[in-house]
Amino acid sequence: MEKKEKIILVTNDDGMFAPGLHALVHAVRDLGKVYVVSPDSPQSGKGHAVTLREPLRFNAVKTFDGIEAYECSGTPVDCVKWAKNILLKNKTIDLCVSGINHGANFSINIIYSGTMSAAMEAALEGIHSVGFSLLDFSFDADFTESAKVATKISTYMLSLDKDPKDPLLLNVNIPALPADKLKGIKLCRQANARWVEEFKEGKDPRGMTYYWLAGEFVNMDSGDDTDVQALDEGYISVVPCQFDLTNYAAFEKLSGLADD
Amino acid sequence: MEKKEKIILVTNDDGMFAPGLHALVHAVRDLGKVYVVSPDSPQSGKGHAVTLREPLRFNAVKTFDGIEAYECSGTPVDCVKWAKNILLKNKTIDLCVSGINHGANFSINIIYSGTMSAAMEAALEGIHSVGFSLLDFSFDADFTESAKVATKISTYMLSLDKDPKDPLLLNVNIPALPADKLKGIKLCRQANARWVEEFKEGKDPRGMTYYWLAGEFVNMDSGDDTDVQALDEGYISVVPCQFDLTNYAAFEKLSGLADD
Repeated sequence: MEKKEKIILVTNDDGMFAPGLHALVHAVRDLGKVYVVSPDSPQSGKGHAVTLREPLRFNAVKTFDGIEAYECSGTPVDCVKWAKNILLKNKTIDLCVSGINHGANFSINIIYSGTMSAAMEAALEGIHSVGFSLLDFSFDADFTESAKVATKISTYMLSLDKDPKDPLLLNVNIPALPADKLKGIKLCRQANARWVEEFKEGKDPRGMTYYWLAGEFVNMDSGDDTDVQALDEGYISVVPCQFDLTNYAAFEKLSGLADD
Repeated sequence: MEKKEKIILVTNDDGMFAPGLHALVHAVRDLGKVYVVSPDSPQSGKGHAVTLREPLRFNAVKTFDGIEAYECSGTPVDCVKWAKNILLKNKTIDLCVSGINHGANFSINIIYSGTMSAAMEAALEGIHSVGFSLLDFSFDADFTESAKVATKISTYMLSLDKDPKDPLLLNVNIPALPADKLKGIKLCRQANARWVEEFKEGKDPRGMTYYWLAGEFVNMDSGDDTDVQALDEGYISVVPCQFDLTNYAAFEKLSGLADD
């Protein structure tokens, strides 16, 4: 029997024209049959938003030579839902990769990140999924090394048995370092960190007050097994993620609340 | 020393005019000094989205007699960030309550829910937080019993010691049942369930194809300790939630990937 070609879904949150998306398509295009569904506008910080109150548009684009690609009017999660249920309805997706994000998504950023939410949505559908982020926000970031990492990790993920009941979801962050400074892959836990927010207050041209969100990332975790620490040391951090948010440790503390 | 009045932040994702918000304000207004910051438009399904690319507007509104209230042009998470960092900058928030949502947010819905994302954002800031949802989507849902539940659980949360390093985050769902059919409060884990999506395909008035997200909730979890099961039995489900998404159980499976 002929070996079936693997099907790989590529998405992101920076939109169809982000260099990181192109780097990721390039990184995985020889590993299987690649489909791209990506937002038609930047969707950073959109978290796990889905579009419920409006219809969605999907337009075929010829952005990638020889690869079926669609731009979507909605969020990264919308992209994945449509790809799974319409575009690839009668196919089995072997891997979903999201990114390569322009900027870090380590630690608590997984909760805000459109890149990771897209990957999580695929994992919720039972598909092994990986979100890739490069620690460089700039549009002309060098994706050479991070694309190699994406090829390596995607190859590994495709080599694993599929398990729709227990899909793997990885949050991969890659330091913006040249090859000779970049250390290997390290499995980590999510650092306990948060954003200390600041709002820039200003007046618009009509004299009305506005607030614009800014913030500083603060690591409150001194552990040496976190993603933040690994990245500081020059490692590529890989955090396996879950979507059971139950805080089992809190049950005892809350025993006074239950009637049963 | 005079006992300091507790400070309670109220928000939601259905917007300032949702009856569920009014029911929640009514439920907690005698428990402390209440502030309301709520989106100026419905934000269901917005997950943990934050507004990064645009400025935000906050307008004082006189919606609630004797209560300081603001409508926000952004998402539920934006509301909480602004309340914490601007409106209540020099104050300590003792409790954040979000809701009462028009419709269920049990199981995996926590990931899509603006109601729960607002509560989670407050918990990320070290504040005990609760998201409340009534299992009735209709605008004229009866919030009488769910408001009583909100009073009871909020009173309990305010009685706990504050612990900014280990804040409690609760996902509370309330069956749409009359008082005599409603059982007590049950601590549960998040059921393993998901949405099986369907997209309604249509043509707009200009003949262009659109897709509109629909879906059916499917419980794949036969456990008797889940929120879905508790609600089926008429209990009020309380799931304590966390935001460390690390899947510690996956480390062994991924050992072949690590270089270290």
